[in-house]
Amino acid sequence: MTRKVSGPEIERIVQLLGRLPGLGPRSARKAALALLKRRNDLLLPLSQALAAAVEKIVECPVCGNLDTVSPCSLCQDPRRDRSMIVVVEEIGDLWALERAGVVNSLYHVLGGHLSPLDGIGPDKLNIGKLIERAGSGEANEILLALNATVEGQSTAHYVTEQLAPTGVVVSRLAQGVPIGGELDYLDEGTLAAAIKARRRL
Amino acid sequence: MTRKVSGPEIERIVQLLGRLPGLGPRSARKAALALLKRRNDLLLPLSQALAAAVEKIVECPVCGNLDTVSPCSLCQDPRRDRSMIVVVEEIGDLWALERAGVVNSLYHVLGGHLSPLDGIGPDKLNIGKLIERAGSGEANEILLALNATVEGQSTAHYVTEQLAPTGVVVSRLAQGVPIGGELDYLDEGTLAAAIKARRRL
Repeated sequence: MTRKVSGPEIERIVQLLGRLPGLGPRSARKAALALLKRRNDLLLPLSQALAAAVEKIVECPVCGNLDTVSPCSLCQDPRRDRSMIVVVEEIGDLWALERAGVVNSLYHVLGGHLSPLDGIGPDKLNIGKLIERAGSGEANEILLALNATVEGQSTAHYVTEQLAPTGVVVSRLAQGVPIGGELDYLDEGTLAAAIKARRRL
Repeated sequence: MTRKVSGPEIERIVQLLGRLPGLGPRSARKAALALLKRRNDLLLPLSQALAAAVEKIVECPVCGNLDTVSPCSLCQDPRRDRSMIVVVEEIGDLWALERAGVVNSLYHVLGGHLSPLDGIGPDKLNIGKLIERAGSGEANEILLALNATVEGQSTAHYVTEQLAPTGVVVSRLAQGVPIGGELDYLDEGTLAAAIKARRRL
């Protein structure tokens, strides 16, 4: 049992911040305090930025990305190569690929991976729209950039099957030793994949 | 060099969240994404709570606490024992004591500790007002609940000297073995303090 400190407004901020990933009750209090102490250069701008997001952020009807314009700025970008669609599980994965600057194509966000035990079947993911896009002749290659986990790979397997009738080329990310990786620290699965997919020099 | 992902609104939220203590660039992105994906049960309420805080939060002119009322709700609480003032470095310390439910007196927040190397002298702290409160006969004991660090203790020393002319009783927190503490894991300083302040059974 904890006594309430200060007014309900501050408690509410602590409680809401505590629901963000990576912030426990203690760090939520620290974050709230930092916000309150830095009213003008942190609390006010964040308050305004969130209000703007509430107002403007929408899910892209084409690819499932979140943005302030619809279709999203990536789907609208005329400089992007429209012949490939990169399929990711989450928007965070899309952000990671964009940060790395390694994709110049369009995306498609599934919104998660298949997980029958959690009740997440194909109908809960943004798969129908992907089949539609693939079938429309929009792109000629679909790259499944899904996580190299059991769930990610079984999702890839399912999506590949669904895409077969469209005749589009389906590919997946290469698996192997990560750049900078030391063999001694890698798991068996990664080593096995790297040997199986070895390249001739 | 990182490429910008999505619109400037989302980038701004990531950037502002990244300034909160405990959130690095990576966790700020995760937090921003969680906010965007949970528009109604997280983004909207947090946006509203922060807007309310911008509007209402003020620094208590008596004790330096932050609250939506002025003087703060602790200073106004008629059930509090007004004969003692508990002096803390930061509002976070006040919150910690209130959560523990171990103080039923008034507080005084210094806003930090003396740190000459960082240019933080007595004029940067809320000390003048404390001397005023002590001199007004409001309380007859001032408990210095400052951190048991070098800075906290030198601040306590300075404040004690400043309070001497007021004739008020000045005390500090006991130092010793923390509850649940194992001697084997405690530092020399704590053990020395615990032995020096030993109590007869």
